[in-house]
Amino acid sequence: MPRVIIYDTTLRDGTQGEGVQFSVDDKLRILRELDAFGIDYIEGGWPGANPRDLAFFEQAKRIPLRHARLTAFGSTRRAQNPPEEDQVLNHLLSAETPTVAIFGKSWLLHVLEVLRTSPEENLKLIEDSVAYLKAHGREVVYDAEHFFDGFAEDPEYALATLQSAARGGADWIVLCDTNGGTLPSAAMTAIEAARRAVAVPLGIHIHNDIGMAVAISIAAVQAGVEQIQGTFNGYGERCGNANLCTILPTLILKMGMDCAVAPNLHRLTELARLISELTNLHPDERQPYVGASAFAHKAGTHVDAIRKNPRTLEHIRPELVGNRRRVLLSDLASRSSILEKIGERYPHLTKDMPEVAALAEELKRLEHLGYQFEAAEASFDLLVRKALRDYEKVFELKGFRIIVEKHGDRPTLSEATIKLAVDGVEELTAAEGDGPVNALDSALRKALGRFYPEIRGFKLVDYKVRVLEENRGTAATVRVLIETSDGRTSWGTVGVSENIIEASWQALVDSLEYGILRAKEEAESLVIPKKDSRERG
Amino acid sequence: MPRVIIYDTTLRDGTQGEGVQFSVDDKLRILRELDAFGIDYIEGGWPGANPRDLAFFEQAKRIPLRHARLTAFGSTRRAQNPPEEDQVLNHLLSAETPTVAIFGKSWLLHVLEVLRTSPEENLKLIEDSVAYLKAHGREVVYDAEHFFDGFAEDPEYALATLQSAARGGADWIVLCDTNGGTLPSAAMTAIEAARRAVAVPLGIHIHNDIGMAVAISIAAVQAGVEQIQGTFNGYGERCGNANLCTILPTLILKMGMDCAVAPNLHRLTELARLISELTNLHPDERQPYVGASAFAHKAGTHVDAIRKNPRTLEHIRPELVGNRRRVLLSDLASRSSILEKIGERYPHLTKDMPEVAALAEELKRLEHLGYQFEAAEASFDLLVRKALRDYEKVFELKGFRIIVEKHGDRPTLSEATIKLAVDGVEELTAAEGDGPVNALDSALRKALGRFYPEIRGFKLVDYKVRVLEENRGTAATVRVLIETSDGRTSWGTVGVSENIIEASWQALVDSLEYGILRAKEEAESLVIPKKDSRERG
Repeated sequence: MPRVIIYDTTLRDGTQGEGVQFSVDDKLRILRELDAFGIDYIEGGWPGANPRDLAFFEQAKRIPLRHARLTAFGSTRRAQNPPEEDQVLNHLLSAETPTVAIFGKSWLLHVLEVLRTSPEENLKLIEDSVAYLKAHGREVVYDAEHFFDGFAEDPEYALATLQSAARGGADWIVLCDTNGGTLPSAAMTAIEAARRAVAVPLGIHIHNDIGMAVAISIAAVQAGVEQIQGTFNGYGERCGNANLCTILPTLILKMGMDCAVAPNLHRLTELARLISELTNLHPDERQPYVGASAFAHKAGTHVDAIRKNPRTLEHIRPELVGNRRRVLLSDLASRSSILEKIGERYPHLTKDMPEVAALAEELKRLEHLGYQFEAAEASFDLLVRKALRDYEKVFELKGFRIIVEKHGDRPTLSEATIKLAVDGVEELTAAEGDGPVNALDSALRKALGRFYPEIRGFKLVDYKVRVLEENRGTAATVRVLIETSDGRTSWGTVGVSENIIEASWQALVDSLEYGILRAKEEAESLVIPKKDSRERG
Repeated sequence: MPRVIIYDTTLRDGTQGEGVQFSVDDKLRILRELDAFGIDYIEGGWPGANPRDLAFFEQAKRIPLRHARLTAFGSTRRAQNPPEEDQVLNHLLSAETPTVAIFGKSWLLHVLEVLRTSPEENLKLIEDSVAYLKAHGREVVYDAEHFFDGFAEDPEYALATLQSAARGGADWIVLCDTNGGTLPSAAMTAIEAARRAVAVPLGIHIHNDIGMAVAISIAAVQAGVEQIQGTFNGYGERCGNANLCTILPTLILKMGMDCAVAPNLHRLTELARLISELTNLHPDERQPYVGASAFAHKAGTHVDAIRKNPRTLEHIRPELVGNRRRVLLSDLASRSSILEKIGERYPHLTKDMPEVAALAEELKRLEHLGYQFEAAEASFDLLVRKALRDYEKVFELKGFRIIVEKHGDRPTLSEATIKLAVDGVEELTAAEGDGPVNALDSALRKALGRFYPEIRGFKLVDYKVRVLEENRGTAATVRVLIETSDGRTSWGTVGVSENIIEASWQALVDSLEYGILRAKEEAESLVIPKKDSRERG
């Protein structure tokens, strides 16, 4: 099988997208995930362009990568500097990555109007920038910026820039459609000319401004290009970059190409959603392969055909990319899927039992209100216990009061008072916090700790807020998702309300109740100890 | 110029998309808009499939169309019915449209497993269903469902189905990739075979499951196909249909094709957004040509080039499709993007002035803390005013107090008290709310309304919360984005804090201050009245 090399630039070109911002921690996490997934090159950022990317490369040095080559990005030297005095080139070297990528100009319009240098000088600085980095032992990826626009206006000059990079010793020459406006037919002509002009392996880097980024990348591989550059979820400047979430399964499943990510393809959907979560942008539900709607069937005739044979309406099996089939408008929370989830714990239940019907109804009602149980299996577990009368209250809330105060320009103060009872014994206590939810969380733990010392080992590790009806302003409904860990495993809970305090309260109470109930059951050996709750779905 | 016929199925196939639902009124409005825009065929729905589509066709009869041919959609007859007794065909006739479209099966898998009829019978029912509709004076569009999958498995049979439709007298034969999984290279082979097999003009109808719908539609036209079927914003089942918002400008601006919509192309963005509004789905901001980000520039080097010559980074002039350029603020940006944004208001400023340097530093500091100004241009405006000493305080906060209380299982109550002063006159007031932020918002408006009656016209239309360091639990930093409208325009503001109340407070105060300052300036005619703050980039 022919091999295609995958070069991910989510952490660099992806962050040029509107609303895409990653913290240094986010970037390090994505780096680890992409490496484990099998991406060949990971472009981490532009060291020197901003303090965040500098900090990233500093910390990335300490992360051992299994497969990927970390790449630092920059440009050819400035016309007035010799390479050894050029700040951009030296920042690239100080990132200490095995591979560096630099872009240079292929389009005379840019040479003359943006660089404001001569065509000859531009060829020279491409060649000696590459040569300087090669002399320092780096693998060099040369990005021919605006190659396709340059080729359209002056093919001879555009090809000469590639030859300069080749003379400098570039290991890869990447043909970029930086403005993203090139038609596939025109792109293919330019790619073939480039193949004839240089012997260096070629890559392709396409922006999606006319919706052709994936099509050109795939056609380029069919024409002999060996490396594809793109981003997860297609993030990138303006309309985005070539979407690796679309390209990878097409290469592997449709074209039988060899990619290092192939054994992990079933993790694609999970990884795409993780990266989407980190951006906090609305995920594109219609995204090919990995979108929530990608295998969602609505039309009655289609649902019927799917039942007869899924191949009739699914171009691949959704499991191959870790996605799943969904049937819309009916069976949203069908009894069979509920039984699939809880059958292990309650093997006596069958589809037509009234308590199963009631549970399905309750789930539908809650999902309609905005509850989401995919990331809140502990709340789902408590819901099931309550519906099946397999539940005992851990404590009784008498009441709480939160006070948030601000005076003039001084910092805002938050304080919570709580009164609760366990087996008739009352406890009244108070705590301060960084904000109202943090204060309430602290007060609740303090009050319950007297009765359930084990909760001191519980740690709230994740807290997410999503406004559901954004156009209702500050009176909108809010969904809170919380993840709690006891050091060994972790569990998720959910709360929904127009009041963010109430929504947070629901999720907090569920998180502690679930942890306490589970610890109790394990201690009493009533059930076999469970693994991570997220593994049980 | 070669002519391409545009067939819109937003009202039929578009509504198969998850979350896409139009009322009869919505459908009638879209019908009028698409007709005025210059679409050639408008597929309105499937009369008989549901009562909504029946009602639509009934009312559509009374709407005079200027250019478009309204089309009713259905299927070939059932195997057991003669055409004149077939309900689907007769529903189609009763819609009284000049054109009807019927789909039939090209893929043996569907013939055998879904229709459960013989290959010969299928050919016969294609031919006589088309012939029956032709005999009733209709223009007939024959949709060859699953043509590409059928061709891949049994090319001879797939082509025979097209020949049956041609024998029946079809005016158009449309090649459909119903599952959307066909590669462009395979699609082109099938299209060429179809061209050789029948003399009837061909159309193309592609789903986007591997991100190729636009690419195949464009390549098909280059190969002699004369009609493109697609939807606005690419709505449609699963990953959607071929996106006409991408295809139309590519045909007209990039390929010099003749389309009836060409004179109205500058209205494309407006129409795409209207239809998106009617679905109530989140608009795809990265959508080619018409998305809000399609001409948004973020990287400092890019902004610099755009200032020198827009052609350097824009593949078309955004006005051609009714879109516009925007300059985003981010830590990747530079003094040039700041000047690009504020140069109109402060024309005396230059890159090397100390106040510009200080403003750039302050922006970097705030962005590092988690502030984001891309969607908060009003907060940016206030920041600039403060840095340039072009600001006067609208009010002075003495203090606020928020109390959130819950007793037992009863709902949570929220109340806010606020004390502030305007020109030395103090006001103390209180308000209740759905949650703490809503209560604070109400109290602030109540207190300020006495001094600035214009704020009664301000409405908070959007409220977003993002937890920035999610793994710090409830003590994490929170970013709040607010959008406020005065009925004519809207503006965005931002706040960041570990305390969600404090973050919301910052964004609320900015939103009211900005609105009050702007109203004041307009009244005093100190500045030229401004349009929507988002339009100023």
